[in-house]
Amino acid sequence: MWDRLLTDCHLATMVASPGNPLGIMTNAAIGIADGRIVRVGKRTELAGFRAKEVVPLGGAWVTPGLVDCHTHLVFGGTRANEHAMRRAGATYEEIARAGGGIVSTVAATRAASADDLKGSARRRLDALMRGGVTTIEIKSGYGLDTASEIRMLNAARSLGRDSPVRIVPTLLALHALPAEAKDDRESFVKMVADEMIPAVARAGLAGTVDAYCDTIGFTPAEVERVFTAALANGMAVRLHAEQLSNQHGAALAAKYKALSADHLEHLDAAGARAMAAAGTVAVLLPGAYYALNEKVKPPVQLLRDVGVPMAVATDCNPGTSPLLSPTLAMNMACTLFGLTPEEAIAGMTIHAARALGLAHEVGSIEAGKAADLAVWRIGELAELGYWIGLPGPERRLFAGRDS
Amino acid sequence: MWDRLLTDCHLATMVASPGNPLGIMTNAAIGIADGRIVRVGKRTELAGFRAKEVVPLGGAWVTPGLVDCHTHLVFGGTRANEHAMRRAGATYEEIARAGGGIVSTVAATRAASADDLKGSARRRLDALMRGGVTTIEIKSGYGLDTASEIRMLNAARSLGRDSPVRIVPTLLALHALPAEAKDDRESFVKMVADEMIPAVARAGLAGTVDAYCDTIGFTPAEVERVFTAALANGMAVRLHAEQLSNQHGAALAAKYKALSADHLEHLDAAGARAMAAAGTVAVLLPGAYYALNEKVKPPVQLLRDVGVPMAVATDCNPGTSPLLSPTLAMNMACTLFGLTPEEAIAGMTIHAARALGLAHEVGSIEAGKAADLAVWRIGELAELGYWIGLPGPERRLFAGRDS
Ligand SMILES: [Zn+2]
Ligand SMILES: [Zn+2]
Repeated sequence: MWDRLLTDCHLATMVASPGNPLGIMTNAAIGIADGRIVRVGKRTELAGFRAKEVVPLGGAWVTPGLVDCHTHLVFGGTRANEHAMRRAGATYEEIARAGGGIVSTVAATRAASADDLKGSARRRLDALMRGGVTTIEIKSGYGLDTASEIRMLNAARSLGRDSPVRIVPTLLALHALPAEAKDDRESFVKMVADEMIPAVARAGLAGTVDAYCDTIGFTPAEVERVFTAALANGMAVRLHAEQLSNQHGAALAAKYKALSADHLEHLDAAGARAMAAAGTVAVLLPGAYYALNEKVKPPVQLLRDVGVPMAVATDCNPGTSPLLSPTLAMNMACTLFGLTPEEAIAGMTIHAARALGLAHEVGSIEAGKAADLAVWRIGELAELGYWIGLPGPERRLFAGRDS
Repeated sequence: MWDRLLTDCHLATMVASPGNPLGIMTNAAIGIADGRIVRVGKRTELAGFRAKEVVPLGGAWVTPGLVDCHTHLVFGGTRANEHAMRRAGATYEEIARAGGGIVSTVAATRAASADDLKGSARRRLDALMRGGVTTIEIKSGYGLDTASEIRMLNAARSLGRDSPVRIVPTLLALHALPAEAKDDRESFVKMVADEMIPAVARAGLAGTVDAYCDTIGFTPAEVERVFTAALANGMAVRLHAEQLSNQHGAALAAKYKALSADHLEHLDAAGARAMAAAGTVAVLLPGAYYALNEKVKPPVQLLRDVGVPMAVATDCNPGTSPLLSPTLAMNMACTLFGLTPEEAIAGMTIHAARALGLAHEVGSIEAGKAADLAVWRIGELAELGYWIGLPGPERRLFAGRDS
């Protein structure tokens, strides 16, 4: 006896087969028990099974719940005024002199209590969940000292306690150099490697360490030191790589078997091949490209050619991507980066799950996985990439329950 | 005795004064009676008035309900497959040969009943209303014969019957040449001027005639013929002008005292000056610029310099701007066209109302106007231009009532 039988629907199962990359199954049904998918099949085939509740979906499309695998959702303040200053003609330097930029977010984040951080992030989380997100990664990285980073990770984690969404916290250990360390980069990196990472690992607050490798971020050598500490503490790694310039960050990420390398506008062929060999996912972030008016796009055809899976995420953050809509992230991936709608959908489901090391649990509709699902009132699946600013799904199921 | 007193809120009244272009009033209140705003003032100043219901808004921001002054909301089918074909590398010619492009929308629209047209438009309208739209213009233009255009206008009008939204139907008389007229442009234009426009005017189905003036649309001479007929039938005019090339459409629009000229990427100084002199509003449509990956932006600084008011709209349509979010239209106006958040907000309120000839009725918060309002749970007003894909307001009031 199942708990629920969803029926009269079409599925994008995301279980690929030849000629059917999204595993599309029309006139289908899904059996759910104990929060998990127990059976997926044709409607007629599942009609004989008994369930406490039969839920006819009137021909809607069902996808896995969306997975937003790269966000900076927890932060103090906003940067709306800075955005307004930019539109009014202020340069980055003028904004920085006025106390803007990441420095302002760090100051506001350090000054905020865990409750403040949670409260402001909750509204952004609600927007993303309304858009169809059932699993979300949240990075720290605006604290820049151990106590503040831990407070951010606690805020992220606690968002999952009073909400059905699945939260994946990540320690963004190297994001920016705090003002107090500007004359001593080395001591800061050493503190991160020797103190911050072990403390977070001990507390079990994050399973993954992230870093920002770029001319305005950290050098490959600094990243290596921190990645070494991450692995020594039993954590996985990810990397913000090749966003504004090529620092061979993708190859570096691959060397440490990173779950993902993210951004990748300036990725080269050697980096892409290294990622393919290491099984590192490419996470594309069109919101930042859009908000920064960038001109260089990630080499999507290269990624296809060498067989690197592409994920898509909102990168929701106050400075470079205040993006609150996962369906818009999919549309931007199509419109700005040239992904097909199929690639965009895979990018916010199965490939995003892989980027989080959660592909055994979410990201596809198959027996054994969590019954995290999105029910869309659309005529064709491609509409998920087509509409600009599509509101979220008609129904969202978390562990089999509407929410 | 008022019906409602909204209190404990901050207002963007859109009644400009020196140094306060949005007419911002903090710690304010609004008195409402019979669906209209009867008094606007400081909270303390209005505290002594009696109302059947006092509504404390907890420090929220209140703007006029958003006015989406340029949409093609009613159409048959979608063009999601065409969008997918483009991402997969198909050229426009291949898509056209496969039956795509505007031809496919015309065929689907002609084949649809008024009920079909209304039903599909209803879902798009719901999305825009959730985003904060309380007044929306809807163009015909996919029928291309008198009966089909009238069916579209009826569908648009009937959307307003079972919804509190204010609908402004426009006869888009010259949109594309129907296949059956391709060897006889002149007869088609003559039919529009002599038959279609008088029929629509007689039926009272639209107060404004629109046309598309461009190399792939209609010539200035053809537009003049149709504008002359519009004026002779007591209708106002608007023009899709200078989108893909400069045809001196803005000056043409000004010559006929058009309410607005829309798109304007290729506007020149003479056209802008003519618009300023005629009081013609510039309607900017960043969704089409975004979806078409255009490179030429409308000359925003020129429009500021000569004093042409700028409106912003979604241009919601199946081919070149399937945009379903008015807050995203405002963000795109800032991010892609360089408007300030203040200009974007004015662009979807008071200036949009002007573009519809409705500035006496909607678009600002002042005594005598309809109590169409949007209540936003944001810290700063500039957030309306800052967030990418901001969900709609917390509350929407149509004629003073929540909906
Ligand atoms: Zn990031
Ligand atoms: Zn248009």
